[in-house]
Amino acid sequence: MDDLLAAVKFNDQGLVGAVVQDAQTREVLMFAWMNREALRLTLAERRAWYYSRSRSKLWLKGESSGHTQKVLSVRLDCDGDAILLEVEQTGGACHTGYQSCFYRRAEPGGWVEDGVKIFDPDRVYGA
Amino acid sequence: MDDLLAAVKFNDQGLVGAVVQDAQTREVLMFAWMNREALRLTLAERRAWYYSRSRSKLWLKGESSGHTQKVLSVRLDCDGDAILLEVEQTGGACHTGYQSCFYRRAEPGGWVEDGVKIFDPDRVYGA
Repeated sequence: MDDLLAAVKFNDQGLVGAVVQDAQTREVLMFAWMNREALRLTLAERRAWYYSRSRSKLWLKGESSGHTQKVLSVRLDCDGDAILLEVEQTGGACHTGYQSCFYRRAEPGGWVEDGVKIFDPDRVYGA
Repeated sequence: MDDLLAAVKFNDQGLVGAVVQDAQTREVLMFAWMNREALRLTLAERRAWYYSRSRSKLWLKGESSGHTQKVLSVRLDCDGDAILLEVEQTGGACHTGYQSCFYRRAEPGGWVEDGVKIFDPDRVYGA
């Protein structure tokens, strides 16, 4: 585990960016941040942990929504400063109810929401 | 164009992270940074521009390697602070010669290189 963590270049805030991809559909679901402990837990438990910059704390994906991510693979990029997780996503990845956080596409007139909405956030998180 | 850029939350360095996915294979190819001008050029020209933090300058993907990225779609995440590009990749995305920058997979013993190498960087960039 220490060998794995040693190759990762955390930034000056102690964080590394993580891209999350659905292993089955290959859809890119989200981008989030991990600190060293989040990455260690993710590697050890094979479920996705992140670090919330706004709340300054570790969070287990799905801890309030139940929309957990089972981690099938963890990849590191050439520079050692970005992670790619392949996951089995339960429910939707995005807190807005969309399958993916990238539910907006650029069109000449503005951002168009064309994502697939699969749950009602008021029901999952409380209104 | 201004409407599109206004929704993007650039960080305190004026940058937004960009995940790049091959439109055909759905492989995640790389993660890079864009400043406002890189994103504007990418939207306008439909080819991928990034911002190099180490060189403090804009760069057109493929400008030295010829391995350009034709941009088929530009997406924005829920928080407005991550971009997803769907691209047609010419050649390999990674300067190491691999198709994807995420060519290392975590195994209990360490990082294992299992990516597909498709060009010799010494031939492309000069030894």
